[in-house]
Amino acid sequence: MILPTAEIVCLGNELLIGVTINTNSAFIGEKLTKLGYEVRRTTCIRDDLELASAFFKEVFSRRPDVIIISGGLGPTYDDIQLEVLGKALDVPLIEDEKAVRQLEAYYGKRNFELSKERRKMALFPKGATILNNRVGGAPGCHLQYDGMDIFSVPGVPTEMEDILLNHIIPILNKKVKNSLFELKFQILNCSESEIAPCINDVKEHFPDLYVKSHPAYKGKMGIVIHVSGYGDKAENGIYKAKKELIKLFKNKVPSLTINNFKD
Amino acid sequence: MILPTAEIVCLGNELLIGVTINTNSAFIGEKLTKLGYEVRRTTCIRDDLELASAFFKEVFSRRPDVIIISGGLGPTYDDIQLEVLGKALDVPLIEDEKAVRQLEAYYGKRNFELSKERRKMALFPKGATILNNRVGGAPGCHLQYDGMDIFSVPGVPTEMEDILLNHIIPILNKKVKNSLFELKFQILNCSESEIAPCINDVKEHFPDLYVKSHPAYKGKMGIVIHVSGYGDKAENGIYKAKKELIKLFKNKVPSLTINNFKD
Repeated sequence: MILPTAEIVCLGNELLIGVTINTNSAFIGEKLTKLGYEVRRTTCIRDDLELASAFFKEVFSRRPDVIIISGGLGPTYDDIQLEVLGKALDVPLIEDEKAVRQLEAYYGKRNFELSKERRKMALFPKGATILNNRVGGAPGCHLQYDGMDIFSVPGVPTEMEDILLNHIIPILNKKVKNSLFELKFQILNCSESEIAPCINDVKEHFPDLYVKSHPAYKGKMGIVIHVSGYGDKAENGIYKAKKELIKLFKNKVPSLTINNFKD
Repeated sequence: MILPTAEIVCLGNELLIGVTINTNSAFIGEKLTKLGYEVRRTTCIRDDLELASAFFKEVFSRRPDVIIISGGLGPTYDDIQLEVLGKALDVPLIEDEKAVRQLEAYYGKRNFELSKERRKMALFPKGATILNNRVGGAPGCHLQYDGMDIFSVPGVPTEMEDILLNHIIPILNKKVKNSLFELKFQILNCSESEIAPCINDVKEHFPDLYVKSHPAYKGKMGIVIHVSGYGDKAENGIYKAKKELIKLFKNKVPSLTINNFKD
């Protein structure tokens, strides 16, 4: 099954120097995957106008169906996402009236004036549609370019999540046709290399499914097995694959224990 | 100051579909930054031989001084890092005697035989030097190619950390000449957009330093200010910049509080 593709881009030196662990790309990646997209790459890139705009052009040349860009929408000197995007798309930045009103409302409630630094957050590449941020100041935006949907979201996780869940997913939901089916279960008292041949066998019988062993998954004991796939065939396929996996595992390591697993 | 550059590559569908949060790239990024490297990009890429080997060639064409590749060294069918690397470098994979002995010792202690799946972990691109893994089965490796140092490490964080700290950092330590100087402090009772103009001013006075505000840093209250730079001038410069920042902050928001901050 050929899925629509997506790339995630995270802008911010703090991600590259290890000050911040990038939780945004996992959050966005999970939502896009469940929606039916194949997330091809996630890239973290520095707050550097030249490097980042050259990188954005690279992403555009790969023509993913969806690009989500997180980080760099705030009021500080290094919040340059929209400038980078304007440069890469070769369009000017224009002050958006709706964004100005949102920023006035947001800062007005806090008795802050709309300073130059705050007003910068209303400058969007020409053609962008503003996406309201209900958690923080900086609005996001949606652009369509050369058949791609480009979305800008802030880097602060709660703000990114608000815009992703309330604006972006509803827009993408109308475009995609495939649903993800998945299950996970946990096995104890065996090593990943012992069960590797069983997974190879099942993978061969179910070539359209993703079958993966995760040792130390989210710090848990043992190994978590993740089976997933898209479309009608996968709805039953994942259970058939699980049954076959369990049979092969027990055959290989009779002493292992199998548990249900919920994230 | 022109710093040597680095890229971090993480291989694994689990990172793209959001099953695993990528903590490895922050860990590696922090160590490389402290060592004196400018980490230019971190990229997560799928376990796909064609896509990943094309991507590796792309990285090579940017000629970073150091490339660290994490993930995909294990025993399962989708652990294909070394195959990808061999294809991208156009060199064959060769069974490494030292790696075979390490794997025999590791599995022997556990009363496991060296099965086909386990023995696969001893196949390295021609020219690689093996890096011993004291935590898990899969050894890492070091390759020199076209002036670049390429290091392969496992994706399991404890195994990656062992090889990074015990092998890779000592190798790189001999090559770099710059030390990072940095400090952090916390401010409370103000917003990021209020202090943005002060940071702009200080950034202009200290163009070689990195000055950055982090709201909600590691889930903490307030804003953490991070000041860093390389070389002799930065050793005093970061303290001068801190003094100027505090003066400007207090001028702008007299009610704010300043705390020391340690990670």
